[in-house]
Amino acid sequence: MFKVAIVVGSIRKESMNLKLGKALAKLGQGNFQASFVGIADLPLFNQDLEGSAPAAVTKFKSEIEAADAVLFVTPEYNRSVPGVLKNAIDWGSRPYGKSSWDGKVAAIAGASPGAVGAAVSQNHLRSIVGGFLNMKLLGQPEVYFQFKEGAIADDGTIADDNTRKFLQGFVDRFTAWTETHTAQNAKAA
Amino acid sequence: MFKVAIVVGSIRKESMNLKLGKALAKLGQGNFQASFVGIADLPLFNQDLEGSAPAAVTKFKSEIEAADAVLFVTPEYNRSVPGVLKNAIDWGSRPYGKSSWDGKVAAIAGASPGAVGAAVSQNHLRSIVGGFLNMKLLGQPEVYFQFKEGAIADDGTIADDNTRKFLQGFVDRFTAWTETHTAQNAKAA
Amino acid sequence: MFKVAIVVGSIRKESMNLKLGKALAKLGQGNFQASFVGIADLPLFNQDLEGSAPAAVTKFKSEIEAADAVLFVTPEYNRSVPGVLKNAIDWGSRPYGKSSWDGKVAAIAGASPGAVGAAVSQNHLRSIVGGFLNMKLLGQPEVYFQFKEGAIADDGTIADDNTRKFLQGFVDRFTAWTETHTAQNAKAA
Amino acid sequence: MFKVAIVVGSIRKESMNLKLGKALAKLGQGNFQASFVGIADLPLFNQDLEGSAPAAVTKFKSEIEAADAVLFVTPEYNRSVPGVLKNAIDWGSRPYGKSSWDGKVAAIAGASPGAVGAAVSQNHLRSIVGGFLNMKLLGQPEVYFQFKEGAIADDGTIADDNTRKFLQGFVDRFTAWTETHTAQNAKAA
Repeated sequence: MFKVAIVVGSIRKESMNLKLGKALAKLGQGNFQASFVGIADLPLFNQDLEGSAPAAVTKFKSEIEAADAVLFVTPEYNRSVPGVLKNAIDWGSRPYGKSSWDGKVAAIAGASPGAVGAAVSQNHLRSIVGGFLNMKLLGQPEVYFQFKEGAIADDGTIADDNTRKFLQGFVDRFTAWTETHTAQNAKAA
Repeated sequence: MFKVAIVVGSIRKESMNLKLGKALAKLGQGNFQASFVGIADLPLFNQDLEGSAPAAVTKFKSEIEAADAVLFVTPEYNRSVPGVLKNAIDWGSRPYGKSSWDGKVAAIAGASPGAVGAAVSQNHLRSIVGGFLNMKLLGQPEVYFQFKEGAIADDGTIADDNTRKFLQGFVDRFTAWTETHTAQNAKAA
Repeated sequence: MFKVAIVVGSIRKESMNLKLGKALAKLGQGNFQASFVGIADLPLFNQDLEGSAPAAVTKFKSEIEAADAVLFVTPEYNRSVPGVLKNAIDWGSRPYGKSSWDGKVAAIAGASPGAVGAAVSQNHLRSIVGGFLNMKLLGQPEVYFQFKEGAIADDGTIADDNTRKFLQGFVDRFTAWTETHTAQNAKAA
Repeated sequence: MFKVAIVVGSIRKESMNLKLGKALAKLGQGNFQASFVGIADLPLFNQDLEGSAPAAVTKFKSEIEAADAVLFVTPEYNRSVPGVLKNAIDWGSRPYGKSSWDGKVAAIAGASPGAVGAAVSQNHLRSIVGGFLNMKLLGQPEVYFQFKEGAIADDGTIADDNTRKFLQGFVDRFTAWTETHTAQNAKAA
């Protein structure tokens, strides 16, 4: 059992990405222990605050650091990563040389009401996470989930069988990918 | 004389992009009237707050709407747009159908201490601003300003002659581009 | 009546983007004169060939230069711009200082069989065309056309009324955008 | 000793990226066996040709498939991936379900004469390679090599000590990253 920090890119109460995150956590029970890491209490990133980081920042960084893998579940805002999520990424990456993301496993999924929705957001996020942040990012399968009312219950139960199978496939690949890298890290330690 | 809202993508006090913004405003005196639109007081974007938007949001949107053109001056954080700037963009774009950005002229410039610095950030920002947000975005010249200590004084004075000429060229193109579109808008009105 | 060069990003015979291009050309009759600029005969870009450019390159560049505006109609290959289209763009941009794209009006549309298909391709293309190439790129509306068998006949006739209205809206915006800029260019000349 | 296919994104004779590729191959001697996979003889991608693929395509795909890892060494053309390289990527990804890239290890490096040069190209390439193509893409270190006349000899010898150390660091990380994944693949087989 490895540890997964789930970071949801929307902070509204009825977020469909929060629901998708819950569905993925539920499908991963038995494989990993998931915890949702909040980003709503973070201040706007300001380098001047780094020296004496606000408590919300310290908490956020320690929660990410306690995980083996990070699962980003995010909508698209204006054809890119939501500012609220990017702000959390920016805090996690600082101060210089003390990035909380470095070397961790990562995967990306996203829900949107429209068909195109999450594709460009994930494209930008991939280049950030799998490149500069040096996370070990899962490639396929991509999850562009077109959310329809009632598709996922508040507790993460998925209504449709085919959807559940597809998302289970994603969770299984994510699990195998993480196990490859955590085994490797254990050997290196 | 047209009106330019300058949005700086960093909120730290000694921001080199703030200095670059001041330099551009100074070079534009006589062509346009510049005002700096603050983004540091905006809350994190949350759709649940849209119905009764915080005062900082209302102020931000009205300042953008009062301008003919928006000049984004921004660093790169983690090879993309800073979360703090994207958060402001997200607020400005909402509620649905009431985007403050729609149809306005835009241009982008950026400073960074390193050589590569601002290129990828501007790449992502271009696709957001010139695409989905439907702003009339200036293409060339691109401004990737490698900032060295003392290059620009706090009041926007530029130390080096060649730098000043290059930035003046950018300001002149931005002015001509804006005049094309504001003239057109005037005719349409 | 202004002149539009249509560049299709796929060279297969039954390309759905070619059909979309034909539909857009048909909707634009009366507004502009469209010609399809072939890219299938271009060699792979090689800077060593610039000095004595192959005839196909010279022809391509002169056809682009004869147009007031360029309409890119392209699929997505591997979540980016098709190589065959990017190759044409690269030839058109060279030699240094003699780009055929510089200052021209541009717009982008795309068809794909899947829902997500063309979004990321267009995102990359926007940043190329509207940034470095310095084209005057139309923002909205975005056209992500999910192509279904029979949606557009070989002569460009559109089967569905709502589709036709949506695409007519795109063509009208493209026309107005081009007229703004060609009028401006005429004044400057 | 694992096998690396080096794909250079420029086909001109004196390509600085070819030289960089040779330098990396030389630094990797003892760790891996490198071969340069040519892309200059590939036709422009055309889905109509897939059924009876040209010999150059078959050869290209088999050379990629024979390798454990792929090293892309590429310039930036017009702020994106060169068309000539994207064309090779497109061929390698086809026919549907028979991608030669799937599951292989990958890393990216690039040289350019200018300071900003290769950053945006690599950004687009990362999202293609590490996402849709499902390659296991190395994150850090990023290699944005500003090429100066004489920096690397035709046989791959690097003139400057610090440059050699930096590039050796990249090669070592690439080696360790590949070994993690080839070991894993061997266990799975």
